[in-house]
Amino acid sequence: MHRVTWTGIALVATLAVGTATAAELPPRPTVADVVKESKPADWRALDPANTLYMELPAGRVVIELAPRFAPLHAANIRLLARDHYFDGLAVIRSQENYVVQWGDADEKSPRPLKSAKSSLPPEFTIPLASDPAFVRLPDGDVYAAEVGHANGFPVARDPKTGEAWLTHCYGMVGVGRDAAADSGNGSSLYVVIGQAPRHLDRNIAVVGRVVSGMSLLTTLPRGTGPLGFYEQPSQYVPISTLRVAADVPVAQRSKLEVMRTDGPAFQAVLAAQRNRGGPWTKFAAGKVDLCNAQIPVRPAP
Amino acid sequence: MHRVTWTGIALVATLAVGTATAAELPPRPTVADVVKESKPADWRALDPANTLYMELPAGRVVIELAPRFAPLHAANIRLLARDHYFDGLAVIRSQENYVVQWGDADEKSPRPLKSAKSSLPPEFTIPLASDPAFVRLPDGDVYAAEVGHANGFPVARDPKTGEAWLTHCYGMVGVGRDAAADSGNGSSLYVVIGQAPRHLDRNIAVVGRVVSGMSLLTTLPRGTGPLGFYEQPSQYVPISTLRVAADVPVAQRSKLEVMRTDGPAFQAVLAAQRNRGGPWTKFAAGKVDLCNAQIPVRPAP
Repeated sequence: MHRVTWTGIALVATLAVGTATAAELPPRPTVADVVKESKPADWRALDPANTLYMELPAGRVVIELAPRFAPLHAANIRLLARDHYFDGLAVIRSQENYVVQWGDADEKSPRPLKSAKSSLPPEFTIPLASDPAFVRLPDGDVYAAEVGHANGFPVARDPKTGEAWLTHCYGMVGVGRDAAADSGNGSSLYVVIGQAPRHLDRNIAVVGRVVSGMSLLTTLPRGTGPLGFYEQPSQYVPISTLRVAADVPVAQRSKLEVMRTDGPAFQAVLAAQRNRGGPWTKFAAGKVDLCNAQIPVRPAP
Repeated sequence: MHRVTWTGIALVATLAVGTATAAELPPRPTVADVVKESKPADWRALDPANTLYMELPAGRVVIELAPRFAPLHAANIRLLARDHYFDGLAVIRSQENYVVQWGDADEKSPRPLKSAKSSLPPEFTIPLASDPAFVRLPDGDVYAAEVGHANGFPVARDPKTGEAWLTHCYGMVGVGRDAAADSGNGSSLYVVIGQAPRHLDRNIAVVGRVVSGMSLLTTLPRGTGPLGFYEQPSQYVPISTLRVAADVPVAQRSKLEVMRTDGPAFQAVLAAQRNRGGPWTKFAAGKVDLCNAQIPVRPAP
């Protein structure tokens, strides 16, 4: 795959000696290079008030909320977390190349809400004017007139309708709902684990992004029921707690930084992904798709 | 997520009664509807000569080879399989949102090749004329001038250079290589398990697609070494055998059919994904991305 792939696995390397016919691309900075050369101002710490910790048996999943795009849903999820709504509930669905979902599986006697609202306005899009941090990605998009990034989240826009919305890229978190547009309340959440299901855009309130712990969700056994729901309660993956980071003692918080998406370092990250250098790469793509654009996250120095 | 999501989980349904404000979309056929209404001529059986079975502890992975796009690589992989090259080797890499890879981890005393070639011409692209089955997808693409499908595989094309190539969509299988373009031989293979890494297109020989058993690969624990390689041999996932289906007794073969991508049923599948109907869907995307376009596979009737 990548040149470094073979540093520990030199079998093929020993078999091929200078017979490549393609012209070599010059080396170029990689994303790792850009991260290494970045400055402190290229990063921002996660805001504890907008960060969730979901504790699973295998470890912690860290979710950054996007209150600018779904303020009512973000607020309701904070209330659910503060009411300990999710504690003892579980991951109940794992569908191949689609989503992993968590919440309450008990339809006969569902866990009651306390301070959280049971129904919310849709929040599927926001006015363009409410997204001042948007930086456009000029590479194009199949689904939307414009795409780009805002405060570390992938965004699409339609200047004709004046709307902006978060897109269903890998790792994005959305609010499950029933057929009614206002039937989601944040008590059922899912994360994208496959090729971006962009057809869900503008159909659901997208509320954030998993910034750490994705593999704890993506490697869960797939559910064998319809839509990847687990068929037996014994298959549920229990959530011990789901908390707002601000409610967790400082010493127990995950100290993470996200690269700012409105600065030069992120533009360099995009450039590194758009045009990779040699010697491994023989053909530079020249473009980067919205959902292929990595948004770097690192432990706070 | 999807309307059916909640059939077994009616919590939210009980809370929302007729308060949706968006206009309802009319119901439209789903992919499942199209499959249900399809005719035998809409499908083709897998060719046993171009089908691989990789047997893992958890079950069988079925790979359809694409000899039209990488004839020398497909032939070499058949030779490797017939020499039982992969038997006792293992899955050695699982990298989040990228690839799972298998082959020989032993760089000090690598398993020798028998009848298979150690080096092959790149086969990263083929001439347009060699891809007569191509059916264009009119929805556009970020990376290529044209995209579409050929014989059940996602394809991109550049009329200016006269080239066609298989794209790195979810489930596509490629040939690992070192820095030299001709250093791959099929003894190291990988499958895409995340957002399509289209920057790999035209850099690697793509040889086929996993048509069954993807979840056996995608749910493997992620490797903790660089690039997701497993750090301990105890983590390797052993391959008991990897065989060409034609070499397996008929009774032990997986009887699968793939929907033809040059017929009306597949166009109906694309339409179903492009514009989903109500009542769950509130906004129809109007487009389908190449790597979001499902290519249906079913057990042979």
